[in-house]
Amino acid sequence: MQQTTYTIPVEIPNLQFYHSPHPFPLEAGGVLPELTIAYHTYGTLNAERNNVIWVCHALTANSNVADWWAGLFGSGIVFDPERYFIVCANIIGSCYGSTGPRSINPETGKAYGLNFPLVTIRDWAQAHDLLRKHLDIQEIALCIGGSCGGHQVLEFAYLLRQRIKKMALLVTSARETAWAIAIHEAQRMAMQADPSFYEDDDKGGAAGMRAARGMGLVTYRTFEAYQNGQTDSDDKLNDLKSASYIQHQGKKLEQRFYAQCYWFLSKALDSHHLGRGRGGAAAALAELDMPALVLSIDSDLLIPPSEQRFLANYLPQAEFVMLDSPYGHDGFLIETERIGGILLDFLQS
Amino acid sequence: MQQTTYTIPVEIPNLQFYHSPHPFPLEAGGVLPELTIAYHTYGTLNAERNNVIWVCHALTANSNVADWWAGLFGSGIVFDPERYFIVCANIIGSCYGSTGPRSINPETGKAYGLNFPLVTIRDWAQAHDLLRKHLDIQEIALCIGGSCGGHQVLEFAYLLRQRIKKMALLVTSARETAWAIAIHEAQRMAMQADPSFYEDDDKGGAAGMRAARGMGLVTYRTFEAYQNGQTDSDDKLNDLKSASYIQHQGKKLEQRFYAQCYWFLSKALDSHHLGRGRGGAAAALAELDMPALVLSIDSDLLIPPSEQRFLANYLPQAEFVMLDSPYGHDGFLIETERIGGILLDFLQS
Repeated sequence: MQQTTYTIPVEIPNLQFYHSPHPFPLEAGGVLPELTIAYHTYGTLNAERNNVIWVCHALTANSNVADWWAGLFGSGIVFDPERYFIVCANIIGSCYGSTGPRSINPETGKAYGLNFPLVTIRDWAQAHDLLRKHLDIQEIALCIGGSCGGHQVLEFAYLLRQRIKKMALLVTSARETAWAIAIHEAQRMAMQADPSFYEDDDKGGAAGMRAARGMGLVTYRTFEAYQNGQTDSDDKLNDLKSASYIQHQGKKLEQRFYAQCYWFLSKALDSHHLGRGRGGAAAALAELDMPALVLSIDSDLLIPPSEQRFLANYLPQAEFVMLDSPYGHDGFLIETERIGGILLDFLQS
Repeated sequence: MQQTTYTIPVEIPNLQFYHSPHPFPLEAGGVLPELTIAYHTYGTLNAERNNVIWVCHALTANSNVADWWAGLFGSGIVFDPERYFIVCANIIGSCYGSTGPRSINPETGKAYGLNFPLVTIRDWAQAHDLLRKHLDIQEIALCIGGSCGGHQVLEFAYLLRQRIKKMALLVTSARETAWAIAIHEAQRMAMQADPSFYEDDDKGGAAGMRAARGMGLVTYRTFEAYQNGQTDSDDKLNDLKSASYIQHQGKKLEQRFYAQCYWFLSKALDSHHLGRGRGGAAAALAELDMPALVLSIDSDLLIPPSEQRFLANYLPQAEFVMLDSPYGHDGFLIETERIGGILLDFLQS
């Protein structure tokens, strides 16, 4: 049963919905007339309502964390549904069930499209806090996220403070860096170069989004990963492996995402700054005094270790872990065996 | 007096032209029915016709090397027109005077456009060798290029061998890497997402090219350069510096380049492999036994030092120099004072 006003581009099993009929004010000044949050839960909430692991997903993921982070799931592993009540909610602006640019604006009867308001990471946190209250969760044993999932963990921790007992911040940053913003702007320019992006059509802007995804893919891995995996034989001068790989990845995203959503999500990323209006990032981090695991991947080109060192330097109770991995930024989704062990130690410590 | 069949998008003073009315066969199998090479010379060819510095320009540069590499030019400096006859020729596929996608195809009376044939770095070298013969140059004292200018130096050296006495290879590689090819594919996808790219129009594909240039710009500099130069104040959540910078750079290229040319030049880059049909890169490099200066920039993300170490390892007479610079790949155009000193020592040694 899907309770959303647009067609979700892929089938997501066991999706649940929370709907708020009230206007939802946004940090940048806009208002959403109503709000839908799609989410997943796994396991059972205990009597004290405090055995919760809250997972914040990254950019184009969905709330079905047991699918995209399967390596962390299972009996005796960190995301153990026999012990924990695990929650993951889809971010506003996405196309995986929560309110986003392809939702119908009840005030016009049409999809928001490019009239969707600017949404920030703080809005993601505020929206998901409505879901927390709806689920009557009093405490979160562990709040965890990688990449922009980590951005959201930081904002959720700032909002909820003592309710979050521990947080795990993987390959993330206190604010979006100028480097990442530059990449996102080039991606948005590619989407905007495709005139169908401006149409009232779920599939509008697909060609531009393929290009934008291709650009993203470059920064998710490393020079060495491309060199080792995508180098051609000596005789080729056209139809090269690496180019085909980028084409393929662009097409894969086209089949499962909407360009207008991709555009607005990248704008949300760019807005990320835990310290905005709070005396700067260092001062804001100093207020988050729950134990924090901060994980870096040494080969990460998109959000490099210097950003996590900054987090660990200013969080009062941080444990910094550097993972050596050839997978770059994507490593947080791939190195699940090693990350799972680190997380389990942290959770049980 | 411009001797080319298209409108060059910027004014380039002192441009000279060499025209060959003969069919010019291309490595990938195509044929150009005729060929124009735009070029610059500075200084005077001596009686022995051997005081030549031949400069190979990078992707979107032109033959006016005294303009874009001004820091290397002047009396007592490496490019000294009082001592040397300095030549730089525009590459095929460009829009700065040589035959390219916006040239009129004499067989149709219309611009080649997307029917322009696939051109490789070897074709650039073959074309410029016609100019060398036209100028009756017997020896090249120094052949130098950075980035894909270095690709061309390698192919020119392979073609001309003993005629090239020394070569300087800056931030370049023996073959195009899978990493660079991935970036170029994303750039081409951005151009192709813009339907005007397919039109018979010099300015077609401009929006896509702006996005493609934005993607390129990210890889020409470094994380730190963006962090230090393009970070906003703590209160901003939209209209960010780094995004404006990328927009600005895209617009700058739009004013001086044509998208169809940018597309075909990136295809030429991808074809680069000195070792194709020659037993591989190591074997081909082993045949280039002139003294070679190989220069790396430690922060180069696009063609990183590992590529230049490969060159230096297999070239029989290589001198490897690592430059520490915050400017990344672009450093070869910026660090002219230090590079000029290194080049002068190499030229006079």
